[in-house]
Amino acid sequence: MTVLGLGLMGTALATAFQRAGHPTTVWTRSDRPGPEGTTRARTAAEAVDAGPIVVACVLDYRAVEQTLPADLSGKVVVNLTTGTPDQAREMAAEVGKRGGRYLDGGIMTTPPAVGTPAATILYSGPADLYAEHENVLQVLGAATFVGEDPGFAALFDTALLTIMYAGLTGYLTATALVDREGVPAKAFLPMAQGMLGTVASFLPAMADQVDSGDFTSREARLDMQISAADHLVHATRDRGVDTTLLTYVKSLIERAVAAGHGGSDYPAVIEVLRKG
Amino acid sequence: MTVLGLGLMGTALATAFQRAGHPTTVWTRSDRPGPEGTTRARTAAEAVDAGPIVVACVLDYRAVEQTLPADLSGKVVVNLTTGTPDQAREMAAEVGKRGGRYLDGGIMTTPPAVGTPAATILYSGPADLYAEHENVLQVLGAATFVGEDPGFAALFDTALLTIMYAGLTGYLTATALVDREGVPAKAFLPMAQGMLGTVASFLPAMADQVDSGDFTSREARLDMQISAADHLVHATRDRGVDTTLLTYVKSLIERAVAAGHGGSDYPAVIEVLRKG
Repeated sequence: MTVLGLGLMGTALATAFQRAGHPTTVWTRSDRPGPEGTTRARTAAEAVDAGPIVVACVLDYRAVEQTLPADLSGKVVVNLTTGTPDQAREMAAEVGKRGGRYLDGGIMTTPPAVGTPAATILYSGPADLYAEHENVLQVLGAATFVGEDPGFAALFDTALLTIMYAGLTGYLTATALVDREGVPAKAFLPMAQGMLGTVASFLPAMADQVDSGDFTSREARLDMQISAADHLVHATRDRGVDTTLLTYVKSLIERAVAAGHGGSDYPAVIEVLRKG
Repeated sequence: MTVLGLGLMGTALATAFQRAGHPTTVWTRSDRPGPEGTTRARTAAEAVDAGPIVVACVLDYRAVEQTLPADLSGKVVVNLTTGTPDQAREMAAEVGKRGGRYLDGGIMTTPPAVGTPAATILYSGPADLYAEHENVLQVLGAATFVGEDPGFAALFDTALLTIMYAGLTGYLTATALVDREGVPAKAFLPMAQGMLGTVASFLPAMADQVDSGDFTSREARLDMQISAADHLVHATRDRGVDTTLLTYVKSLIERAVAAGHGGSDYPAVIEVLRKG
């Protein structure tokens, strides 16, 4: 295995391959040494020469393009660098031009979890190419194939990270709020976790509304939610906690109501979100 | 039982009491009839006279104050109107002055779920008063006592709704994003639900960091997250989906890094949130 890039994540990937018994060659632009048991190549080209599978995890897609040699005949590039779906599609085309085959991947975890089943990694690209290399990719974590479009791993990665950051930010805002009244985070934790379970239980009905385009309220009319959202903003501001998130929610509700969705459920705000 | 207010929620509460076999008297400012089987009082005072327990669910706390009669001797007011913790504390004092006892409540559900175990309702106020009336309150849903401070039901309600709206908004933003690439909400649903489970699994470690004040990175350094957040903003903007949520996340990370938290995990943004 070849791993390009020895940041925290690249190092974790190389370590996982090495521990699973795969001879692993590493390269990085810096003079950082590779993890124990791996071979440090002097150039990226030398690292790529070492074997058929090249895993790239560098700063950005520009760095991937610059690092990969001009001739990739017989090589499989598995690009785990963070990027956008369009960058992934462009890189798939570029690797193809250089004679190689391409899988894009999105790592849905942090470096310490790499190499454990808790590490979900999304892959997209040719299904036969993924099937051929699935076993070795499982070494890095729970490999999940999400489609032939090379942009899909990045697309779902982006979408899921959006949910993650939204959830974490909501949790921290809520935790800051209860903290103002002397409630420790630990005491609020079980309720917060319960609410994430409740949110998950709402999603199937929401997905149905989004797919059907029929948002007619069966739960809580948006025009009735404006005053509730306003309460949230005030209660939060009164405690000196940042209200940006809640002001945004209120504005989404108001804009959806103004667009004729007063009698709709919350998923109707997707029509506001779609207008960017 | 007495129920003041016959909006969607008040009607659901009165219906739940009536169905559980409690003689129920209702009153509303409008000329709306009460649910079948309930008695419609001509005035709020007459409704309050009908029994010892008065459940209020009206537009706001000002309406509660105006609706309740001046003499509340021997009455228990259970206020389920949406409001802030401070409003709840003021109302507790006001009801006390009028000779009554007070429980505040936060309804964590929508009207159709009231009367089922899926409806969580938070209560705060004197523990003995709650214990005395817990059985009858369980008729409305899963009653949960959250503390003697009368403001706590509203506090936790506010905090949990913040998590709910953040989670739902993150989900809808993500769903709008994948929709731009032709992926139906239904296809994205299992991944979205899985991510909420992942977020829930992150919270115990985050709560520890918040309570200890030690945010030293064990997962993903904030200074390394700026470029990831920037990718999310760009990928979302490129698809014509609203970037407000992600731009906010990016700005929280940047402000935390500027405040010296480059080597911290994400929970350090709570220090930015606290500055309002």
